[in-house]
Amino acid sequence: MNVTDLQKARHFYVDTLGFIETESDSEHIYLRGLEERVHHSLVLKKAEKPGVHSIFYKVEKEKDLYMLQSLFEEKKLPVRWLEKEHIRSIGRTLQVIDPSGIPLSFFFEMEEAERMLQRYDLYKGARVQRIDHVNCSVPDVQKAYDFYIKELGFRCSEYTATEEEDIWAAWLFRKPTVHDHAFMNGLGPRLHHVAYWLSDPMSIIHTCDVMAASGYAANIERGPGRHGLSNAFFLYIRDPDGNRIELYNGDYLTSDPDFKPIRWDLNDPRRQTFWGHEAPESWFNEAMPFIDFRNGKEIELEEGKLKQRKPNFIT
Amino acid sequence: MNVTDLQKARHFYVDTLGFIETESDSEHIYLRGLEERVHHSLVLKKAEKPGVHSIFYKVEKEKDLYMLQSLFEEKKLPVRWLEKEHIRSIGRTLQVIDPSGIPLSFFFEMEEAERMLQRYDLYKGARVQRIDHVNCSVPDVQKAYDFYIKELGFRCSEYTATEEEDIWAAWLFRKPTVHDHAFMNGLGPRLHHVAYWLSDPMSIIHTCDVMAASGYAANIERGPGRHGLSNAFFLYIRDPDGNRIELYNGDYLTSDPDFKPIRWDLNDPRRQTFWGHEAPESWFNEAMPFIDFRNGKEIELEEGKLKQRKPNFIT
Amino acid sequence: MNVTDLQKARHFYVDTLGFIETESDSEHIYLRGLEERVHHSLVLKKAEKPGVHSIFYKVEKEKDLYMLQSLFEEKKLPVRWLEKEHIRSIGRTLQVIDPSGIPLSFFFEMEEAERMLQRYDLYKGARVQRIDHVNCSVPDVQKAYDFYIKELGFRCSEYTATEEEDIWAAWLFRKPTVHDHAFMNGLGPRLHHVAYWLSDPMSIIHTCDVMAASGYAANIERGPGRHGLSNAFFLYIRDPDGNRIELYNGDYLTSDPDFKPIRWDLNDPRRQTFWGHEAPESWFNEAMPFIDFRNGKEIELEEGKLKQRKPNFIT
Amino acid sequence: MNVTDLQKARHFYVDTLGFIETESDSEHIYLRGLEERVHHSLVLKKAEKPGVHSIFYKVEKEKDLYMLQSLFEEKKLPVRWLEKEHIRSIGRTLQVIDPSGIPLSFFFEMEEAERMLQRYDLYKGARVQRIDHVNCSVPDVQKAYDFYIKELGFRCSEYTATEEEDIWAAWLFRKPTVHDHAFMNGLGPRLHHVAYWLSDPMSIIHTCDVMAASGYAANIERGPGRHGLSNAFFLYIRDPDGNRIELYNGDYLTSDPDFKPIRWDLNDPRRQTFWGHEAPESWFNEAMPFIDFRNGKEIELEEGKLKQRKPNFIT
Repeated sequence: MNVTDLQKARHFYVDTLGFIETESDSEHIYLRGLEERVHHSLVLKKAEKPGVHSIFYKVEKEKDLYMLQSLFEEKKLPVRWLEKEHIRSIGRTLQVIDPSGIPLSFFFEMEEAERMLQRYDLYKGARVQRIDHVNCSVPDVQKAYDFYIKELGFRCSEYTATEEEDIWAAWLFRKPTVHDHAFMNGLGPRLHHVAYWLSDPMSIIHTCDVMAASGYAANIERGPGRHGLSNAFFLYIRDPDGNRIELYNGDYLTSDPDFKPIRWDLNDPRRQTFWGHEAPESWFNEAMPFIDFRNGKEIELEEGKLKQRKPNFIT
Repeated sequence: MNVTDLQKARHFYVDTLGFIETESDSEHIYLRGLEERVHHSLVLKKAEKPGVHSIFYKVEKEKDLYMLQSLFEEKKLPVRWLEKEHIRSIGRTLQVIDPSGIPLSFFFEMEEAERMLQRYDLYKGARVQRIDHVNCSVPDVQKAYDFYIKELGFRCSEYTATEEEDIWAAWLFRKPTVHDHAFMNGLGPRLHHVAYWLSDPMSIIHTCDVMAASGYAANIERGPGRHGLSNAFFLYIRDPDGNRIELYNGDYLTSDPDFKPIRWDLNDPRRQTFWGHEAPESWFNEAMPFIDFRNGKEIELEEGKLKQRKPNFIT
Repeated sequence: MNVTDLQKARHFYVDTLGFIETESDSEHIYLRGLEERVHHSLVLKKAEKPGVHSIFYKVEKEKDLYMLQSLFEEKKLPVRWLEKEHIRSIGRTLQVIDPSGIPLSFFFEMEEAERMLQRYDLYKGARVQRIDHVNCSVPDVQKAYDFYIKELGFRCSEYTATEEEDIWAAWLFRKPTVHDHAFMNGLGPRLHHVAYWLSDPMSIIHTCDVMAASGYAANIERGPGRHGLSNAFFLYIRDPDGNRIELYNGDYLTSDPDFKPIRWDLNDPRRQTFWGHEAPESWFNEAMPFIDFRNGKEIELEEGKLKQRKPNFIT
Repeated sequence: MNVTDLQKARHFYVDTLGFIETESDSEHIYLRGLEERVHHSLVLKKAEKPGVHSIFYKVEKEKDLYMLQSLFEEKKLPVRWLEKEHIRSIGRTLQVIDPSGIPLSFFFEMEEAERMLQRYDLYKGARVQRIDHVNCSVPDVQKAYDFYIKELGFRCSEYTATEEEDIWAAWLFRKPTVHDHAFMNGLGPRLHHVAYWLSDPMSIIHTCDVMAASGYAANIERGPGRHGLSNAFFLYIRDPDGNRIELYNGDYLTSDPDFKPIRWDLNDPRRQTFWGHEAPESWFNEAMPFIDFRNGKEIELEEGKLKQRKPNFIT
């Protein structure tokens, strides 16, 4: 994720939220959560303006990369290889652009890092524990859904449907929690947010207090609240460049192969916020553009196919 | 406090919020918190429309009532006695109307009730522990402040001032916490809210969840959030008749006689909500009228003397 | 799990701990957690004396049962089929006895039940959310470890080794958390405990309070505390028949295929209780016998192969 | 309170528990909690061996000191004055020895310090909020009780009685919480512990985790647990010199003048720990000696008058 000022970003992510800084250079800060035993789960990159370079997925073995290469080539989707020496701490990497226009990267090995889960003396701020999921705004949720379910082996935990039974949003998972990757209908492809798991709900309350005390009250965008969909206790915050992070706790296991996706009506007010609070306009309108690895430019955006831009609680 | 339907009120206060019902008859429900060893701290009275009859204060000895009688008579303020047989569970009571037009009642004895603090098997909902304070909207905060400080022996913990150093709101206490009685500039006299203390912040989160699950999502008016002023973690809710209750935790002790009141600027956005969230319009506009014990009618309202009706976060 | 009095057991599991009772008859109570969308995760069976009939695992498809049948038959281990009509809410079931003498049952379908996760109005006691794992005392941990890892596809998250590098205990998983099935060296095979996941650490504190208020203070056996191994915040309790339940929150994800098991030294005092508290003798000595489905008798016990019965914190 | 190594003490109190260090010199560290607006509530003094110099109480006005002087002189108890220049941050101070042999100091003014309650960015460890009470072991609880109630204007919230209705322990207060000063029957006078109030129960759990991660697991002496008496959620810890601190949350208000003291039977197991856990031997046996300001020597100890040294849970 691009940031315009590494020092400001460090104050936000490391000093305030409590991310662990694994290492940094003049262009990057590599961050991980307290439980993560790998080099990083988030890279901040110094740049002129905001933008997201890629969402990275780890696969089990190198040969899985070749299977993915075949899949994307067969679909006539862009593919390129990044050799080990060109990417910090990660081995050979396959970069692609998915049918929604989202740049993905697949890798199979990563440098280890010390687990800080029991270094409670280092806990501060949000006590960020591990990456949980990403959520993307895309013009055609049905198309994204089909590709991730049928080709990439994701399953669906919950989804939102319009009255015509069009899928307006879908929560898809590989690890058996509510999601690894969600899609919402809207101007896209854009990254709506990256979510980190916290160990308990009180950490979200404490994060609000620490952010306010550190001068970041205006960066608290939405919450704390309970999602009806996923049951998570959440907080959405914006970093100094506007990148959106969700702090997240309290969903459930989806490991039962017979688990049936839960359907929510788009206009059910308890879906977004179980307690009935409305999300602010910015939460619906703003998201982070993706950058095309082929030319370094922002990937072009398209309007969401489904007309209704956001839930209508008046109906 | 008037309610139009005792059964609906019971579902809200007892079944959902977890108040203890000490007793009830066809016209009243007497409620107390888990820690309270007295008959009640809140009486719901069946009536055609909302209204608050009186705010009750307990004094130490019967003769304190006579001192208060003299004080109010001297100030030419309305006074009447209510004999023991006319008021449930409370002894002889002095009823007055204070300089802001607020009906107050003073009593010196009350029936005991069992303390439920360690009956954790009965805990539910908000786990309401004890009454903490009341907050009234009055036309002239300076006048109310002077009377409560100089005549009734209250002290001030925190206050809000305009740029001209007029007191826009004041938090006054007898017990050494942030307040027993707060005043805010506005259309009044009206009771803005009654606040109950909860044992811990998680009880506020759980209250939101239980209210939403019980069909009361729309009754969550504001919060959860942290007040800058008082430092309390709060939630404002409305009962089925619109009466406003604050659930409250996390203020501090004010027992040091050298404690100096903390001044907040009216337009400091962290004053109302430390995290920066704005309160909804209804929170500023709506409050409960008082009923005059002399004629059973609503006490007449006057506009707040200070022009600025609510904090202006744009300035 | 056998209980001698269904009514007493219901008071403990349903009224006090907050399990959901899906259904019951004169011989059984079927229980599930708030998040569970299946008929039950725990069956209490009326009997003369304590005993555990079987640990049930759900497989994906019916044909997985046949693969398991072949595996156990090949190893000359006892196998029998239970037809759908003989077991409540579960389809065809394969029953076996594993190399440690533990009776296991495998099934592929189960009746659904309503998810109560968002019925916060029904939350009480421990707010039991879902089954997490079982822990068995066995005479030969290495043998159990080898079978579960090599034949049943479990992975190891953490283990305890003696100075001679013998495995004294191992935490094995299929779902990517710390464990589904743990083994400890000791007199066995016996079921040491069944563990349920709670949504947050405060629920464990509240459980202690509710148990004490309900007359079950003596049933709190160990904790609350933090395990060094697994990082879980835990409480061990005994039901009225002595069956041991662990309430559990706060471990971590193990989904990374490169995750390497964490080794603990048997005598590291932070392993069992990160805070240094010792477990009581009963926790080391007492566990629940298994019942052999072939003859209804208790499965015979053998001493643990490794001499040192429990951690020695003095060394 | 004496400590033998200021640097080690700082690591414990400031770095680990999160006390605010107001100032220090080569002989002292002055500490306060996050909510405290005064210079200090705890002074650590470098010394060869443990010992407590005095318990300080703030009175409202200077003339209160003269009333106290008369009282102690009348009772033929030792009295001396300490002038402002001889004691850091505190004005003129009256030092006395009470009937139990406890050195007390009374003062009426103290330097102010910044309130850190909303500096959430500085919160760490136990997030120590304010001093709550002291607890002393004395040979004659009845004598201490009589003096504090009748002469010093304390009230009693709860007490423990033997079968013969002798007072074995008493909880006395000036501020309307459960206590400011408790007395227990035993070898004394000794300071059993100083207690600090924390804002919420989760801070106690976090303190255990931080202490264990910081190498202080062995300094966790008792708890976390719930006191039956006072209802507080507690943790007892020992500093590197063995001084005992209680971290404390969750008692209740005692401001009602009609509040009647709650009686507990000495042998009621729920009195000490509501959950039934026993306190370790060290908790009953060990406490801090007081130092006589007249000669700098330890005040002589006497055995508790009541025979039964500690609760007998077997009876």
